Amino acid sequence: MAKQEDKFKKVIAHAKEYGYIFGSSEIYDGLSAVYDYGQNGVELKKNIREYWWKSMVNMHQNIVGLDSAIFMHPTTWKASGHVDAFNDPLIDNKDSKKRYRADVLVEDFREKINQKIEKDITKAKKRFGDAFNEDEFRSTNANVVRRQKEIDRITVELTRVQEENDLAGFKQLIEDLGIGCPETGSKNWTDVRQFNLMFGTKLGASADSAMDLYLRPETAQGIFVNFLNVQKTGRMKIPFGIAQTGKAFRNEIVARQFIFRMREFEQMEMQFFVRPGEEMKWYDYWKETRLNWHLSLGLGKEKYRFHDHDKLAHYANAAADIEFDFPFGFKELEGIHSRTDFDLKAHEEYSGKKLQFFDPELKESYVPYVVETSVGLDRMFLAVFSSALQEEVLEDGSSRVVLKLPAVVAPIKAAILPLVKKDGLPEVAQQIVDDLKWKFNVIYDEKDAIGRRYRRQDANGTPFCITVDHDTLNDQTVTIRDRDTMEQKRVPIAELKSLISEKTDAEYWLK
Amino acid sequence: MAKQEDKFKKVIAHAKEYGYIFGSSEIYDGLSAVYDYGQNGVELKKNIREYWWKSMVNMHQNIVGLDSAIFMHPTTWKASGHVDAFNDPLIDNKDSKKRYRADVLVEDFREKINQKIEKDITKAKKRFGDAFNEDEFRSTNANVVRRQKEIDRITVELTRVQEENDLAGFKQLIEDLGIGCPETGSKNWTDVRQFNLMFGTKLGASADSAMDLYLRPETAQGIFVNFLNVQKTGRMKIPFGIAQTGKAFRNEIVARQFIFRMREFEQMEMQFFVRPGEEMKWYDYWKETRLNWHLSLGLGKEKYRFHDHDKLAHYANAAADIEFDFPFGFKELEGIHSRTDFDLKAHEEYSGKKLQFFDPELKESYVPYVVETSVGLDRMFLAVFSSALQEEVLEDGSSRVVLKLPAVVAPIKAAILPLVKKDGLPEVAQQIVDDLKWKFNVIYDEKDAIGRRYRRQDANGTPFCITVDHDTLNDQTVTIRDRDTMEQKRVPIAELKSLISEKTDAEYWLK
Repeated sequence: MAKQEDKFKKVIAHAKEYGYIFGSSEIYDGLSAVYDYGQNGVELKKNIREYWWKSMVNMHQNIVGLDSAIFMHPTTWKASGHVDAFNDPLIDNKDSKKRYRADVLVEDFREKINQKIEKDITKAKKRFGDAFNEDEFRSTNANVVRRQKEIDRITVELTRVQEENDLAGFKQLIEDLGIGCPETGSKNWTDVRQFNLMFGTKLGASADSAMDLYLRPETAQGIFVNFLNVQKTGRMKIPFGIAQTGKAFRNEIVARQFIFRMREFEQMEMQFFVRPGEEMKWYDYWKETRLNWHLSLGLGKEKYRFHDHDKLAHYANAAADIEFDFPFGFKELEGIHSRTDFDLKAHEEYSGKKLQFFDPELKESYVPYVVETSVGLDRMFLAVFSSALQEEVLEDGSSRVVLKLPAVVAPIKAAILPLVKKDGLPEVAQQIVDDLKWKFNVIYDEKDAIGRRYRRQDANGTPFCITVDHDTLNDQTVTIRDRDTMEQKRVPIAELKSLISEKTDAEYWLK
Repeated sequence: MAKQEDKFKKVIAHAKEYGYIFGSSEIYDGLSAVYDYGQNGVELKKNIREYWWKSMVNMHQNIVGLDSAIFMHPTTWKASGHVDAFNDPLIDNKDSKKRYRADVLVEDFREKINQKIEKDITKAKKRFGDAFNEDEFRSTNANVVRRQKEIDRITVELTRVQEENDLAGFKQLIEDLGIGCPETGSKNWTDVRQFNLMFGTKLGASADSAMDLYLRPETAQGIFVNFLNVQKTGRMKIPFGIAQTGKAFRNEIVARQFIFRMREFEQMEMQFFVRPGEEMKWYDYWKETRLNWHLSLGLGKEKYRFHDHDKLAHYANAAADIEFDFPFGFKELEGIHSRTDFDLKAHEEYSGKKLQFFDPELKESYVPYVVETSVGLDRMFLAVFSSALQEEVLEDGSSRVVLKLPAVVAPIKAAILPLVKKDGLPEVAQQIVDDLKWKFNVIYDEKDAIGRRYRRQDANGTPFCITVDHDTLNDQTVTIRDRDTMEQKRVPIAELKSLISEKTDAEYWLK
């Protein structure tokens, strides 16, 4: 655990030091759970977004894009269920004036009991050595059995109060368990109440005429309300998809883990419209297709796993997460949901407009079923960045920090370095920059010794360093150094473009 | 005027019919002054954004990007002046309950007088023919002289009440002029009051602990508060620039003219940090550089003009607009502003943090001066789209609607069309799609006669149609048809990639 935390701290520090992520409004001491992307971060984010777009829109002839506004008509959120059901249960401590999520209080309490069990098991393991049988111990040790029963009882009651929205029961549960304020221990609690996670604002000039708006909590609804517009003007036939990237906003009470859970974040969502009854086929197709997309980045197969949902949201008949091994453990990176016809039917009901497709093969009209793929762009960023950051011990015993970003998404593809700042080498290096910059994001760097510049680009995540030396003046060749292997080879300047293309073009990564 | 309005209506209708722009939340009867970009619109917008980014960030070694959040610490907007001064003067009619911008009421009244003058001039021109001298007429005709005096008097008083923020005087002016409600004629007005144009929202869960936030009304401040973060982690030396694209929000009272003035819109801004005293050199440089960027799109030199500001904002010592000839006349497309050290100094004052650069050549620290270039992405979209939409009469007397988008920003670069739906032609066409799609956004279309498909792609803005016919099966050649000239030539399939590249790569447009 301590090792994980240490690694996570290094990720955050490196992200700041190399211009990837800054806290928002830092000079004003920041804004909680909001972050800005720096000069390298913006490029990495753009490249991940583009890699997704290319694989979804450009590669699939039956998927098109959309860019709907953050502001939508407020009835949208009635129809989607967000006005009524997009809530967190909150409770205040009257003495400490601190506010908590009631479910988190109970879950943390339950986790503490679980940790006691784990402690007992660890102790017993030490005592009994090879003879220890964990299953037997769990079912016979009196303390463990008692604690496990307590955990099960809490889980049952927590599930009940949540499902029945029994707020009085929620408070009772907290009091029965004797949970105190985590900071002061006070058990003087207010009632539990539901707090809607959507940010509100007002359109128009005054209280009487203003319209209450929400900042969208997901991009998906922008796709649903435009379903017919796109289908008709794009002459789309089912099955087809609409893809969109864009900002969404959630007023999280407990927002933490850096850019993993932010109040302002970016989604990359695709809604795939299919014939009713064919949704499970497409659900399986998209689970596999999306996992393959993640694997194409080469971060390692062992970093991903599926988590199939037992408990389904009101709109879904099947759902799975692709989880990633973040510095704080396996967590959701992408969701694939079979949303049925819930959303389109709800919008039909609230708008009074038909949202149906006439299927020329079946010769009938129907409300399509929907399979959704939804990935957090910021989470993708964190997944790529955190697993790319590595410390290596080299053969000579020294160490280096290297950011092994997949070259296809790396912010800067190559750094062009004159070996020395004289003899015409800077001029040649500049010519190479001026030639390559049309196709790649490249930089020029002449400051410090060459070894130091290599290290700087390693830490910056730049896949290639191209060095101009005195031989270059005679034979028009340069050295190209690979960030990951640190191998250098001598190549003609004329071949640089195709060499870098082969390693950085999406074509070679997606195929 | 009627012709202009007619043209504008055609632009709006075409934008919807071809999947470029839909009204937001149309199924709920829309949201005023908010629009969604459809399957073609999102690509055109992305391409314009990317063309800007390439020219600003990738082409300039001393400009880097940034992606700061929409949410910022609220003190940001105290420092920038937006909390105190980003207002519109509003007035309500007590009888009709309609709300107006007080300045617009007065300006419209003044414009009506001006139109009377224009009418008199037109009449006199007709009567006197070649003998007519407009200057003489303006200075001698009693009616015209009287009206011009009235206009001048209104201008002086309007300027005064605005500059002095004299709200009582503003109301008095409206009453003195006898301005009535444009819809009902009623002169029963409320007082004039200032209305702040920023959208507000609340971060956090309840009234007592929540923080009042604003949706940013401009992206520029995200650059200023990150000035030192970027400068230090990016090792930037003055002069250098930070570029950013992103959403901004303004609660406009009178939002109109389609996507020209929206409540949610996207900016492309670059702040260039320079030595104090060198700002005018850079101001001139950026005026010229930005105009050249616009001209590179080939919409025609006559569509652009500079408008140098006489009246400057509180933060500027020089400012100019690049105006574009929109369907409703010349209006601001981009602003170039010499903002002095106003913003950085204000943030120093409000944050208590130094925002200075140590200049190694001058061996001194200073707060840099800033030259800003700020262009509306949606306005760029409208400029490109509206001037591209043309109706042509062909040699045979028939007419066609063609969307002559610059190929570098066109959503779809080529449509691949089998001449007939048999004999293996569709399969060959699909192979071409599968080959080209890695580099270009291309589509396949086999529906309808070939002539109709050409017309459809003309209206869609697709620069190239590639037709597979029976000869293709023998000699591996296809025809490629140019959208603008309608010329077709026969080329080998193997040459398609380089042919399309030459016409659509940013390299050939920016050079």
